Amino acid sequence: MVVKSELKLIKSLQQKKYRNEHGLFVIEGKKAVEELLCSSFKVFKIYVTKDVLPIKNIKNQEVLLPKEMNQISSLKNPNGVVGVFYIPNAAPVDFSDWVLALDDVQDPGNLGTIIRLCDWFGIPSLVCSKNTVDCYNPKVLQATMGSIARVTISYLNLDIFLSEVSVPVYGSFMEGNSVYSEELPKTGVLIMGNEGKGISNKIKKLCDYKITIPRHGKSKTESLNVATATGILMNELRRE
Amino acid sequence: MVVKSELKLIKSLQQKKYRNEHGLFVIEGKKAVEELLCSSFKVFKIYVTKDVLPIKNIKNQEVLLPKEMNQISSLKNPNGVVGVFYIPNAAPVDFSDWVLALDDVQDPGNLGTIIRLCDWFGIPSLVCSKNTVDCYNPKVLQATMGSIARVTISYLNLDIFLSEVSVPVYGSFMEGNSVYSEELPKTGVLIMGNEGKGISNKIKKLCDYKITIPRHGKSKTESLNVATATGILMNELRRE
Repeated sequence: MVVKSELKLIKSLQQKKYRNEHGLFVIEGKKAVEELLCSSFKVFKIYVTKDVLPIKNIKNQEVLLPKEMNQISSLKNPNGVVGVFYIPNAAPVDFSDWVLALDDVQDPGNLGTIIRLCDWFGIPSLVCSKNTVDCYNPKVLQATMGSIARVTISYLNLDIFLSEVSVPVYGSFMEGNSVYSEELPKTGVLIMGNEGKGISNKIKKLCDYKITIPRHGKSKTESLNVATATGILMNELRRE
Repeated sequence: MVVKSELKLIKSLQQKKYRNEHGLFVIEGKKAVEELLCSSFKVFKIYVTKDVLPIKNIKNQEVLLPKEMNQISSLKNPNGVVGVFYIPNAAPVDFSDWVLALDDVQDPGNLGTIIRLCDWFGIPSLVCSKNTVDCYNPKVLQATMGSIARVTISYLNLDIFLSEVSVPVYGSFMEGNSVYSEELPKTGVLIMGNEGKGISNKIKKLCDYKITIPRHGKSKTESLNVATATGILMNELRRE
């Protein structure tokens, strides 16, 4: 049984303010919870329903009735596993490989897809501006499909961060040079901008190179979705 | 004023059954409606609220009160322009360029993003299996951002279509050859599969080449999102 205070705590973690206050976040789904349990994330408590096999080797585990699961889940159709984990401390950015930086990406689905892309392409560090959507937002976590376990994410003051880095800084712009004709180095920072406004002027000034994905045909499409563009550019970074 | 029968008709077009029955679909937003008006799509009627400037050179246009707009719009926050257009007749597939084919893509957001990608990369023809989500679904249209005006979409029996084509057929598989090492021709068909199941066995047998986007690092990510993977592969087709 979930006591009232616990229910209130878990529900409050839907909001960034309370996640930061308690240093905790919620992730749902057996696979995602198991991936976090195998990572460096520290578990606070796991809740499961009887129909889901209990997750092995975990002490802080509570079996709930479906009715109780409905109360703590943020999903319309709860999938039987809710994990509460500690938000990890900030880790250093790994400059031995490409670093991805986001300038105010707002959509949770986009950030989730981008985290999944970092995982696929083996980009170890993701740096987010302070106004980028919170990576512990339930909708972001849902879209990461467990990839958050394998990507180090930092929320930093992006202009201070960029003015201090010693690797080349690449920004994705509509009016940049074709990425096909750039000789991309082995390490650097790649910046992707906000969905509507792109990279802000303040950050633009800190870019050493402006690159773009060439448009083909007589298209009037204004721009590619930021997550799709990130995928294409990461692929370019990783091409042999 | 919208008469009751008209209101009923427009609302019914949220459902595929009624779209096919009436041969009509609804698209919302000034930009998307204007793009369709500049294309070969034929307009049935446009509805606007007074705060939105009426769209020029259109006779079948009706100014509505905000209350009425709320009734016909499928959006929580209607944006003041609703267009009703005729579903065009099936057009022939253009084999003079790459053709994209989808095997049962289910998510409206994914199909919308893929249509936008066809537009960006200048892929003229998109072929969808009969079980792919309907491209006139309001959520698909919302995600296309008007790109549907510039891509020819056909719903066909995919196995019959593929068994009759004379260009090489490429399928995207987890276990395919690295796309980086393939010499891609100037024309062909690229097939992308369902979100959960990938390309079905029936269609797999009709693929001449199986390609994949290489995974980097020690990632456990199961797969890339189908729209992101489509973007990366289209970029590969268009690379000089």
